[in-house]
Amino acid sequence: MQSFTFHNPTKIVFGADKTDDTGKEVSKFAKKVMLLYGKESIKKNGIHKKVTKSLTDAGIEFVEKGGVKPNPVISFVRESIQIFKKEKLDAVVAVGGGSVIDTAKAIAVGAKTDFDPWKFYIGEKIPETAFPVAVVLTIAATASEMNPTSVITNEETLQKYSFVSPLLYPSVSILDPKNTFTVPVKQTSNGAIDTIIHTLETYLNAQDNEIMIIDSIIEAIVSTTIDSAEKIFKNPKDYNARANMMWSATLALNGLTSTGSGPKIFPMHMIEHSLSAIYDISHGAGLAIVGPAWMKYKSALTPDKFAKLGKNVFGLEDENINALAQKTIKAIETWFKKTGAPIRLSEAEIPESDIPRIAENAAKLAKKWGLKEYSSQVIEQILKLAV
Amino acid sequence: MQSFTFHNPTKIVFGADKTDDTGKEVSKFAKKVMLLYGKESIKKNGIHKKVTKSLTDAGIEFVEKGGVKPNPVISFVRESIQIFKKEKLDAVVAVGGGSVIDTAKAIAVGAKTDFDPWKFYIGEKIPETAFPVAVVLTIAATASEMNPTSVITNEETLQKYSFVSPLLYPSVSILDPKNTFTVPVKQTSNGAIDTIIHTLETYLNAQDNEIMIIDSIIEAIVSTTIDSAEKIFKNPKDYNARANMMWSATLALNGLTSTGSGPKIFPMHMIEHSLSAIYDISHGAGLAIVGPAWMKYKSALTPDKFAKLGKNVFGLEDENINALAQKTIKAIETWFKKTGAPIRLSEAEIPESDIPRIAENAAKLAKKWGLKEYSSQVIEQILKLAV
Repeated sequence: MQSFTFHNPTKIVFGADKTDDTGKEVSKFAKKVMLLYGKESIKKNGIHKKVTKSLTDAGIEFVEKGGVKPNPVISFVRESIQIFKKEKLDAVVAVGGGSVIDTAKAIAVGAKTDFDPWKFYIGEKIPETAFPVAVVLTIAATASEMNPTSVITNEETLQKYSFVSPLLYPSVSILDPKNTFTVPVKQTSNGAIDTIIHTLETYLNAQDNEIMIIDSIIEAIVSTTIDSAEKIFKNPKDYNARANMMWSATLALNGLTSTGSGPKIFPMHMIEHSLSAIYDISHGAGLAIVGPAWMKYKSALTPDKFAKLGKNVFGLEDENINALAQKTIKAIETWFKKTGAPIRLSEAEIPESDIPRIAENAAKLAKKWGLKEYSSQVIEQILKLAV
Repeated sequence: MQSFTFHNPTKIVFGADKTDDTGKEVSKFAKKVMLLYGKESIKKNGIHKKVTKSLTDAGIEFVEKGGVKPNPVISFVRESIQIFKKEKLDAVVAVGGGSVIDTAKAIAVGAKTDFDPWKFYIGEKIPETAFPVAVVLTIAATASEMNPTSVITNEETLQKYSFVSPLLYPSVSILDPKNTFTVPVKQTSNGAIDTIIHTLETYLNAQDNEIMIIDSIIEAIVSTTIDSAEKIFKNPKDYNARANMMWSATLALNGLTSTGSGPKIFPMHMIEHSLSAIYDISHGAGLAIVGPAWMKYKSALTPDKFAKLGKNVFGLEDENINALAQKTIKAIETWFKKTGAPIRLSEAEIPESDIPRIAENAAKLAKKWGLKEYSSQVIEQILKLAV
């Protein structure tokens, strides 16, 4: 087991109708906040009303800023920071999923400085302070509600970059499974795939495999996510399935699952970021395409972990370890397809002829992330496995 | 899944030789500390030297206070608080296991007041502030290094009581698996049993069983603890086994495993506290006796969870759920015995004739903890299953 530091200060308030506690929680650190969200759907499903009533009841003023898009962009962050400063706000309340939360984090650090917030993402600046962020989660997927990462796309340079700082942990995140009752099948599926790939990035890339406790926890998360998703597909208002999926998604990337395995390496995310930066497909869909392709590449090098996963999560058997690894990938791919996700580039209408362009984009990120073995040639080779 | 709040601010610094970082970590919040420990063994095995060197190198003054005993007592806490105040200290550095850490927590809150610290334990007072506590863990067992609980015995009244406050989370805990290389078989076994029972208190007493993610994580902790302990018995210096056991023990009672299952109920601990308050046997040994006895009582009421545990952790099968539950208890009991722990009162030289006295003591704690179904009659009935 490798050395690690684990220090996650985010407070999680989990349960049915906990959305009504938003104001009470936020009042512990703020008086006038930016209420940030994406689409108007939170107005239709009643979440917007619950949050605004809760804030008002707690005596908290708020300025609304809607319109965060999936694969959120830096221009929106810049614009929001201007409003935040002008209105003299003191916190961001993010009502949404990963895109809204990541945008909130960018605003919270960016509003403390006078330089362009993109500098954080390209590593030119490191934040020294940040305004607090509160989250009301509306989709189980990214774990941004309990981690120190923000991923933003620069739409001018087509760079989808992440930045990490302990200042980016939300102060409080409200996880109310009822808020996900109206999440459609497609997004539920994307969220489940995101959760599974988050844990598998660690499981399959671990630089130390003497981590039985963490491997077993990851297997628990993958099994629970699959089980919960299938229950949700049958009944979108299955509270316990939504709750299990929500907590699993958070635990998948809150730091716990990467303890002991050595430096984090996220090659599937690295390649996917290029897909969603260029084509604006959802992160989960991108991962459903890149994941199995990368696994086919990787399993030839380290079949053991794939075999272990197949045995422990999918109940597969084979005396030949390579054959078992391939069965495992097939099981994952089959499940992704069953949820309705695209598993080939063509299913997302991405032409094979674009592979060099995607690979070139991804290779830049590989360089930034220090993933030396992922040259544009290797990435091309992986993407060809997704044709 | 039941509602919950999860908020654990303790920083974990985990890894080989991380003991050398003690001074660096402590210097972030203190200048002159109480260096608290138990037996002189930390001087023999070199941990004392490493910690004092690290503190000195970081410019931190310290006053030593050794002699914390297993099942630590309130008189020692009172005495230490006087020293803490007199020397104008600003933190406690606990080098040891649960007894030392629990004592450190008591000193850290007690030194902020002028009343008797036992008032916290009997619920007469609630702390408003506390000095910080740092931990250098030397045994994997109680998880006190990452939780908000302190258990202290009042040797005059023979009460072993716990108290919980968010102020009791250690600021930083250093988990260096190498520090457990010299832990003897008996204490290693006690620690493993403590870890297993911590998780099973939740698993077997859950008031909500729609918590697949948490049940699976608990199964992961139990399996890893058993696997690691067996490796350690063969080779006490098996780093990865020590590391897996250490992290499992912490995760077993840091709040994670009780998320979603409803209010915490700890009947095995409730009865065991009376055993170790009266007889001064170790907590782990007491649990090895009380655990199987309580399980025999409980499995008649709710065999399902016992059956699930047997299937998923011990690979047991039986078409009859009650039979499977009994097989599960037998497997746990057999494993406890295999590690050398006592599993019957007689093996700890506790006479059967003492059962009424133990039950009377435990019934008082049951009342304090609000465990209404555990009258002294019921507790007697359970203890008779340990004859």
